[in-house]
Amino acid sequence: MRVLILGGDGYLGWPTAMHFSQLGHDVLVVDNLAKRQWEAEVDSAPLQPLPTLRHRVRVWREATGKEIRVAIGDIAENARFVYETFAEFQPDAVVHYAEQPSAPYSMAGRDFATYTQRNNVIGTLNVIHAMMRHVPDAHLVKLGTMGEYGTPNIDIEEGWLEVEHKGRKDRLPFPKTPGSFYHLSKVHDSHNIQFACRIWGLRATDLNQGVVYGITTDETELHPELHTSFHYDAVFGTVLNRYCAQAVVGEPLTVYGAGGQKRSFLNIRDTLQCVRLAVENPADAGEFRVFNQFTEVFTVLELAERVAEAGRHLDIGVEVSHIDNPRIEAEEHYYNPRNDALLGLGLQPRLLSDELVEDMLHRIQRHADAIDRATLLPTVRWRERDESLSR
Amino acid sequence: MRVLILGGDGYLGWPTAMHFSQLGHDVLVVDNLAKRQWEAEVDSAPLQPLPTLRHRVRVWREATGKEIRVAIGDIAENARFVYETFAEFQPDAVVHYAEQPSAPYSMAGRDFATYTQRNNVIGTLNVIHAMMRHVPDAHLVKLGTMGEYGTPNIDIEEGWLEVEHKGRKDRLPFPKTPGSFYHLSKVHDSHNIQFACRIWGLRATDLNQGVVYGITTDETELHPELHTSFHYDAVFGTVLNRYCAQAVVGEPLTVYGAGGQKRSFLNIRDTLQCVRLAVENPADAGEFRVFNQFTEVFTVLELAERVAEAGRHLDIGVEVSHIDNPRIEAEEHYYNPRNDALLGLGLQPRLLSDELVEDMLHRIQRHADAIDRATLLPTVRWRERDESLSR
Repeated sequence: MRVLILGGDGYLGWPTAMHFSQLGHDVLVVDNLAKRQWEAEVDSAPLQPLPTLRHRVRVWREATGKEIRVAIGDIAENARFVYETFAEFQPDAVVHYAEQPSAPYSMAGRDFATYTQRNNVIGTLNVIHAMMRHVPDAHLVKLGTMGEYGTPNIDIEEGWLEVEHKGRKDRLPFPKTPGSFYHLSKVHDSHNIQFACRIWGLRATDLNQGVVYGITTDETELHPELHTSFHYDAVFGTVLNRYCAQAVVGEPLTVYGAGGQKRSFLNIRDTLQCVRLAVENPADAGEFRVFNQFTEVFTVLELAERVAEAGRHLDIGVEVSHIDNPRIEAEEHYYNPRNDALLGLGLQPRLLSDELVEDMLHRIQRHADAIDRATLLPTVRWRERDESLSR
Repeated sequence: MRVLILGGDGYLGWPTAMHFSQLGHDVLVVDNLAKRQWEAEVDSAPLQPLPTLRHRVRVWREATGKEIRVAIGDIAENARFVYETFAEFQPDAVVHYAEQPSAPYSMAGRDFATYTQRNNVIGTLNVIHAMMRHVPDAHLVKLGTMGEYGTPNIDIEEGWLEVEHKGRKDRLPFPKTPGSFYHLSKVHDSHNIQFACRIWGLRATDLNQGVVYGITTDETELHPELHTSFHYDAVFGTVLNRYCAQAVVGEPLTVYGAGGQKRSFLNIRDTLQCVRLAVENPADAGEFRVFNQFTEVFTVLELAERVAEAGRHLDIGVEVSHIDNPRIEAEEHYYNPRNDALLGLGLQPRLLSDELVEDMLHRIQRHADAIDRATLLPTVRWRERDESLSR
């Protein structure tokens, strides 16, 4: 199968590319490498220095004898590049991670909000138009986020809702109340893709993914230079990854507000499993399918307590501290999302274990000297522009 | 009151600007004049040649002694212009029409789709950021469209839906299934603005407007050069306006498909009335309010029959013809939208009368020689790119 990975230089894109290559698929990675610029812009660096994409592909070939092809280009700014890539590679599946992925980044001011929505929405519009033109039967596997739903007071179904209203019924898109301009960009994408499926008969799976944690996959373990881009800072680091870094350097774990915010989580290894299940079981022609991609729900306070507990086992003293919430979000709320679809396809969840947290702490300890404590605390606040970043 | 009209050179923006000026408000019009370029691009021209915006403002001053100020600039491309305009004018109300308004234009190919969404979504993001920065207490009156809702099998409420699901309840954004990349851009705007109200306490009214018809308002009648930009072609002409032009030149009225498509309609004079009611009764701080702005529902076939009937009174032979539907849309469907909010504020609907259709036919007859028959038939088809336009 020809699998096109858009955004294949990133935290999830690179392990996904290796995973499909290892499974024997013909993999082409596309990336504009912009994440490396965004990191510099907000004073963030991955835990371990990241070799270039082409270097990693060479290491992959040497380690496995397998070829991952690379095309460097911007899917939002260069439509001709997108069309030519689709025309030449003729993908069977398109795994689309190529978006600005940080909520705080999108909330740092006007320039960051408009950049995020332009990059994400226009990139996806270019992709669906190129698919319609050159590979109308290919399957788009698009990474969305559980954050698209917000925290409604009803169960969160998978993308669609059977609505009964004044005695009449319809199946309609699940109403969404996302919490940042980044999350909004994914809501816009979902509407655009759903429309493309409806009018052009495209097949698409929207993976509304929870918060990912973890450092390693089977493929990153094959060679020291095959690691992925692990962030621990307040802009690009997801919450459990950030807590682990804080624990390792002896900083308090910073819980935003009361900490009762419930979120969906999954291990990076399960991201690969879910994307593989989606690709191997494509949507029907014209179908816009939504899978909620997570394995467990925790409050952000519970997660901090899990890290503190693991720290005690390792004789690391860990303090949990509540700080003013930089975001605007409910800190106590109902939250009951469904994730039946991927379980039905055979997802075997790797649930969060104390061993896993301890393993993360051990791995981060090896690079503890590289951790920049200044980047652990949030600077972007939802209610006001960030004067240190805003242009 | 200081009223800022974004998109004040257009079909609705210009009459709105005159209307608020006539009511004694201090009016500043912003426009990038891009509509004049889009028209040329798709081979469309207004029924009557349109004087420049500054010329019309001079005529307005001479006719009424009242001043409308003008600032030429692009709200999507020039954020500094937006911020400076808001900082200097300090509007109490911002009436936002400054968007690409044509569904067929947005469906003519990738370049048109991405342009429409970039222009509309980024322009609105710039506006809400500038409001947050410089006039956080001003009232945003944003023109949306009834087309955001699509044609669900349940009653269409005003922007929000009381959802009951598995024994739990919430008030959530009404689920939307829009029918073009243009309509999608307005859905994206609605989500973005709702979020800005939620986190920044902005006050906004989203006017989900039906299809507008009509040529004249009280103010356009004050001088021959104060007319508005009336389109009759298949890209920028709304359906009743187009039917009237077809009738006048003896072409068949082209009903798309079976013609059972029900849509919401209103007279251009009622647009002014509704916008005035919204401005005079602002939303609360933090409130995202949605009004469905229309007065009547017709099928597109019923409208054709109304024009044919009026033609008979005037001894114009009018033929109604069904053509292949260039759009992808249900041609028989349930449709029951609510419009209680504006009626509650005192809207006095001017319902479609035979006299009004006859008056439109009479007025169009005066300019019949200018009508370009080649532009009356649709060239843009939803299912495929338009090779004559696509870049």
